[in-house]
Amino acid sequence: MKLSDWITGLNAGGSDGWGVFYKAREMKAAGEAVLELTIGEHDIRTSDAILEAMYRSALGGHTGYAMVPGVNSLRDVVAERIAERTGVPTTRNNIMITPGGQSALFSTHCAVCDTGDTALFIAPYYATYPGTLRAAGAVPVCVDARAEDAFQPRAGEIAAVAPGAKSLLINSPNNPTGVVYSRATLEGIASVCMDNDLWLISDEVYDTQVWKGEHISPRALPGMAERTLVVGSMSKSHAMTGSRVGWIAGPEEVIARLIDLATTTTYGVPGFIQDAAEFALLQGPDLEEEVAAPFRRRRDIARAILAKQNTVGLIPADGAMYLMLDIRATGKSGEEFAEGLLAEERIATMPGESFGTAAAGHLRVAMTIDDDAFADALTRLVSYAERITP
Amino acid sequence: MKLSDWITGLNAGGSDGWGVFYKAREMKAAGEAVLELTIGEHDIRTSDAILEAMYRSALGGHTGYAMVPGVNSLRDVVAERIAERTGVPTTRNNIMITPGGQSALFSTHCAVCDTGDTALFIAPYYATYPGTLRAAGAVPVCVDARAEDAFQPRAGEIAAVAPGAKSLLINSPNNPTGVVYSRATLEGIASVCMDNDLWLISDEVYDTQVWKGEHISPRALPGMAERTLVVGSMSKSHAMTGSRVGWIAGPEEVIARLIDLATTTTYGVPGFIQDAAEFALLQGPDLEEEVAAPFRRRRDIARAILAKQNTVGLIPADGAMYLMLDIRATGKSGEEFAEGLLAEERIATMPGESFGTAAAGHLRVAMTIDDDAFADALTRLVSYAERITP
Repeated sequence: MKLSDWITGLNAGGSDGWGVFYKAREMKAAGEAVLELTIGEHDIRTSDAILEAMYRSALGGHTGYAMVPGVNSLRDVVAERIAERTGVPTTRNNIMITPGGQSALFSTHCAVCDTGDTALFIAPYYATYPGTLRAAGAVPVCVDARAEDAFQPRAGEIAAVAPGAKSLLINSPNNPTGVVYSRATLEGIASVCMDNDLWLISDEVYDTQVWKGEHISPRALPGMAERTLVVGSMSKSHAMTGSRVGWIAGPEEVIARLIDLATTTTYGVPGFIQDAAEFALLQGPDLEEEVAAPFRRRRDIARAILAKQNTVGLIPADGAMYLMLDIRATGKSGEEFAEGLLAEERIATMPGESFGTAAAGHLRVAMTIDDDAFADALTRLVSYAERITP
Repeated sequence: MKLSDWITGLNAGGSDGWGVFYKAREMKAAGEAVLELTIGEHDIRTSDAILEAMYRSALGGHTGYAMVPGVNSLRDVVAERIAERTGVPTTRNNIMITPGGQSALFSTHCAVCDTGDTALFIAPYYATYPGTLRAAGAVPVCVDARAEDAFQPRAGEIAAVAPGAKSLLINSPNNPTGVVYSRATLEGIASVCMDNDLWLISDEVYDTQVWKGEHISPRALPGMAERTLVVGSMSKSHAMTGSRVGWIAGPEEVIARLIDLATTTTYGVPGFIQDAAEFALLQGPDLEEEVAAPFRRRRDIARAILAKQNTVGLIPADGAMYLMLDIRATGKSGEEFAEGLLAEERIATMPGESFGTAAAGHLRVAMTIDDDAFADALTRLVSYAERITP
């Protein structure tokens, strides 16, 4: 029986750079002690207080169908939070609650791209981006940011492929690079969007994890609120990855159409999870800082270790839970280095190539193990790099 | 800013027959006492035992990313349950867990239909069907079942539009009609699918609500396992509508591709909800019968009331939580009748026209209020019908 060309084309084939990840999982399953610095998942669980709020809501009867666009009170809280942080007037009608950020990435592209439309995105990129754009029927076109620019994309290079495209997807603070886009970068991007009538889809799920500088939401730049769709999530900010709850912020008329889409694709988000998210957001910035603190600490640990040597470079790590290491001085590719590091040191990292050719010769390190183990892993990674460098 | 034609076309326009529903909600909000027989939602909540299982799982640490295709143990339990009930060999590799039945309806059509492909479905139909098929990029083509056949579709009429189509969507036990497809109906449908190389998408979310006869899964018919995708859900069987957890059962190679789709559209289902679903399924048929029992009782109440008169007809109510009433003897359309019943008796029902022209002159009554109120509503509905009949 034949499947649709569309679904068989989602996984565009070729090495996806996840070989090291799966090999590490197999080694662990076989009982070997492997340090995993691969996945963007906290080493803490969702807090008991948030889970209690969820249970209270469920016991209280919020177990039936919730409103498809989201519970009004959560939409209000998200809207107020965004208005407060960005200065852009935002009401519940600008917000749709989604079952996680991934659903928001898919839905926003569906809203603006028809089959065959060009959707731009920046490399290095989060692993699901190309497939997500294809799932929305779009043709993904990648613009490489460069290591020598600390992976801040160049507006001119986006402009070169923008004519005729429908949308541009950006992510700051960035996974996998840990880079926070500067005001100059974002203003350049905004100009390209306005000049070429592009929708900007801004994935801001790491907006509470900024170690240096500030997070600027491009929706707050002049003329951009009407053409920007922001993707948000509780996953990274509140260690709620498994709860699958996020949102889209954008113009009212887009949200209205997105509700039609949600009605036919997901039919909303569990009410008790939405109540838990509302409870979590109402705890304010202290809880968010508590969730972010381990990554802030480990970034400092890594910087101190890396400052003592010249073999492994560090892309300025200004935000998110990752470090992007430049291992080109070793003469190895990211894949070769990661394979060797796993085999010889039992340390699993992600080859930069997993996130597009723009990050070739780099390694992504997730700062998601406890401080001492993390310091040990970084120290051994550096020793390994020094050992293999010709 | 222009949205995609695709998303603006999801809601195909025209009256959707939900006017009575929204009017009733407004009346209730304004403080009027309205009996709502509109929505397919239990008048009980999810049981405390299931919610405790969810909380236990969450406190136990199942709050991080769950496996995208579903937790293995839940996939196993669903597979065993299906194998047991249908006799079709089924393993976890035949199962993907989805965030609710609606997501399963969307994803299955995505898996088999490319943009512009014809997807067949039967009227009267569940409200989201046409939009869901459009969301998957397909062109929905409706085959009307007929009141005089008790809404069992005729294979010959499906065959007439089958050439060139990719898929057929059926739903038995049926929402909105309460009809359970007979073996003859399903064998006829299976023949049409095999003759025309159609995928069969079988929405079986009401499979635990059968009052007369038996539920037959068409995946169990000869030659059909390889071309049937079954949509299942915890919503109706375990009063877990708000938990958004369901599944797709089908050939391994389809499930493998559906995992690619889930990775880019939802990224899985909360682990603690999956654990709650597993707990609920492991309670066995007693819990399912307990959840179904109120509808079984109310069906009997309705049959007793309707047996005493000849104005309002009842389509054989063999399953699901609905009755389909034939009010053509009153000379009114379903919409006129429902409008009048709401205005004069403060009883809200769904006009048959909400579910396609096949159900014109009918009313759908959801058996979702307590027995006494339900009996009162039915009695007054009959009196109203008698009063307005010329």
